[in-house]
Amino acid sequence: MPDAALIQRDESDSTALPAPYLLFLGDTTEAAFAKTAFGLRDWASDRCIGEYALADATVTTGLEPMTPAHAARRGARAMVVGVANPGGLIPDSWLPPLVEALAAGLDLVAGMHVRLADLEPVREAARRYGRKLFDIRTPPANIPVGTGRKRSGRRLLTVGTDCALGKKYTALSIARGLQARGLDATFRASGQTGILIAGGGIAIDSVVADFASGAAELLSPDADPDHLDVIEGQGSLFHPSYAAVSLALLHGSQPDLFVVCHKPGREQILGHPGYALPSIEDVIDLTIRAGRLTNGAIRCAGVSLATNELDDDAAARVIAETSARVSLPVADPVRGGEAFERLLDACTS
Amino acid sequence: MPDAALIQRDESDSTALPAPYLLFLGDTTEAAFAKTAFGLRDWASDRCIGEYALADATVTTGLEPMTPAHAARRGARAMVVGVANPGGLIPDSWLPPLVEALAAGLDLVAGMHVRLADLEPVREAARRYGRKLFDIRTPPANIPVGTGRKRSGRRLLTVGTDCALGKKYTALSIARGLQARGLDATFRASGQTGILIAGGGIAIDSVVADFASGAAELLSPDADPDHLDVIEGQGSLFHPSYAAVSLALLHGSQPDLFVVCHKPGREQILGHPGYALPSIEDVIDLTIRAGRLTNGAIRCAGVSLATNELDDDAAARVIAETSARVSLPVADPVRGGEAFERLLDACTS
Repeated sequence: MPDAALIQRDESDSTALPAPYLLFLGDTTEAAFAKTAFGLRDWASDRCIGEYALADATVTTGLEPMTPAHAARRGARAMVVGVANPGGLIPDSWLPPLVEALAAGLDLVAGMHVRLADLEPVREAARRYGRKLFDIRTPPANIPVGTGRKRSGRRLLTVGTDCALGKKYTALSIARGLQARGLDATFRASGQTGILIAGGGIAIDSVVADFASGAAELLSPDADPDHLDVIEGQGSLFHPSYAAVSLALLHGSQPDLFVVCHKPGREQILGHPGYALPSIEDVIDLTIRAGRLTNGAIRCAGVSLATNELDDDAAARVIAETSARVSLPVADPVRGGEAFERLLDACTS
Repeated sequence: MPDAALIQRDESDSTALPAPYLLFLGDTTEAAFAKTAFGLRDWASDRCIGEYALADATVTTGLEPMTPAHAARRGARAMVVGVANPGGLIPDSWLPPLVEALAAGLDLVAGMHVRLADLEPVREAARRYGRKLFDIRTPPANIPVGTGRKRSGRRLLTVGTDCALGKKYTALSIARGLQARGLDATFRASGQTGILIAGGGIAIDSVVADFASGAAELLSPDADPDHLDVIEGQGSLFHPSYAAVSLALLHGSQPDLFVVCHKPGREQILGHPGYALPSIEDVIDLTIRAGRLTNGAIRCAGVSLATNELDDDAAARVIAETSARVSLPVADPVRGGEAFERLLDACTS
């Protein structure tokens, strides 16, 4: 399991979130919507005390179930909303448990489009119990319009055939793997879970569209020539809802390298029946086509496959088949091994 | 001169603005700052009752000068700030006439960076007189995430090699031209000036990135099979700052047809030296490539050239040369004529 201590954090832009966390799962029955909770469990386990789910939930992180009061007695300082509904809404059924956490002495941390501070019962309870609300999806003020200016240092961006198939995991794994080799690499978070894990970053999808590429430029500033920023991608250029976010991140990141993330077996865009998943080759082609605008030298370093639903033999087979087909290193970072080392090699060349 | 009566408006649109308008010119002495007022006079004259200028103003639209009280008696429902100062600020000298309009029973409409609702004397007067403030750059609340669902009716989007080369003017001209032929077409505004002209719309560039394609979907709702929405484009897929806005508009508009707008002689992206303008062919190719995601039948209807800096012969030559090169109808809508009629033919086929 990844070691959170290996993920570098830039203390100067730390959001100073109160930890450890109790992870709130709501009434979620779809694992893909709980990726914040899973990401924190896997990459920041030292800061996760347990989970709190409503009666209808079927998803679990495997962490110890506990109430906010129990978690507070065990030392938790905040409850993190670890699930994201489409559109980032907070259903009314979540309000009582959120207020319960505040009453138990926990702060609240969330990364949804709806701000905790805009929910009257939550805001009122925070005031009453003297607790803080952290809306980490709210971008910093005064983001400039993107300039397209070439910055110093090197950049790698993870892109995808869809949402929710490992772009954050892959970026974290590559940053960790390169750091383990003694190289100068930094994970850069572009979404709420990544921000919780890294302790800093900008939720690109929450930035006003006119400024989204400017926000991506802020995310990976000028750096030493040998430094590599490993930037967490968002969405997909082939996603009917979120492609604009992906393009802003691509243009603003001006990556030298990108890694395509894909989940073998997924055939349709998640939540969009009728939208066929693009091929890995289509993603490579359009990413180069669009990415050339701000970095003429952009190229694909390899492919990251999420093989968690396959057995070892099937995973090895699809990794080998994909690598032969696209003529690039292909690996599942969760499985690691020689394949992943070859992918890391490609990220350093 | 364009006939505003030919620009259809959807009265059920929740973003519809109160009309007719009194145009406020402030103390403007520079015609370039009054482009909004001139655009309204030229494209929405049926909704412009008169103009109201302060004593120091030298710019006039030629509409009848009148006070807010006079305009209200003549049926005006709103005063529109028709001028923009550098920086988008509202000087203190404008506050008394803005309050005067509210006291006279008019709502206020503005599309500047500074929001009317953030000006304390204006906000207070609106409350006191029971009037509404419309900051048309502020998008409507609760825009949903884009779905990619195919909508009924037909759509045309204007796209561009850059910003500021006629995408709004082209869309207005095509909508007017088709309406003059008795066809069922509606101009759909995606920017502040277009919104004032159309009486409704959404400033796509002001929408949070995650919802930008959803906003574009709202902009051109389901319609009769023969109805054509002519949608004002924004930016360019090749613009290092704003390509994400353009992509969101392309995906959410799901156009059947698009018209590429270009200004002959412009060689670099405006304000971005070092960024070469893409060719018209590049724009056609990438627009089809990206637009196929939400409309597999997308195709280019033709090209609109802004030839205002060329003499008649040079304009005719570049129009003919471009048409021969791209094998599509090419016209300057401002010049009209046979070339523009052929472009309109292509928009109906």
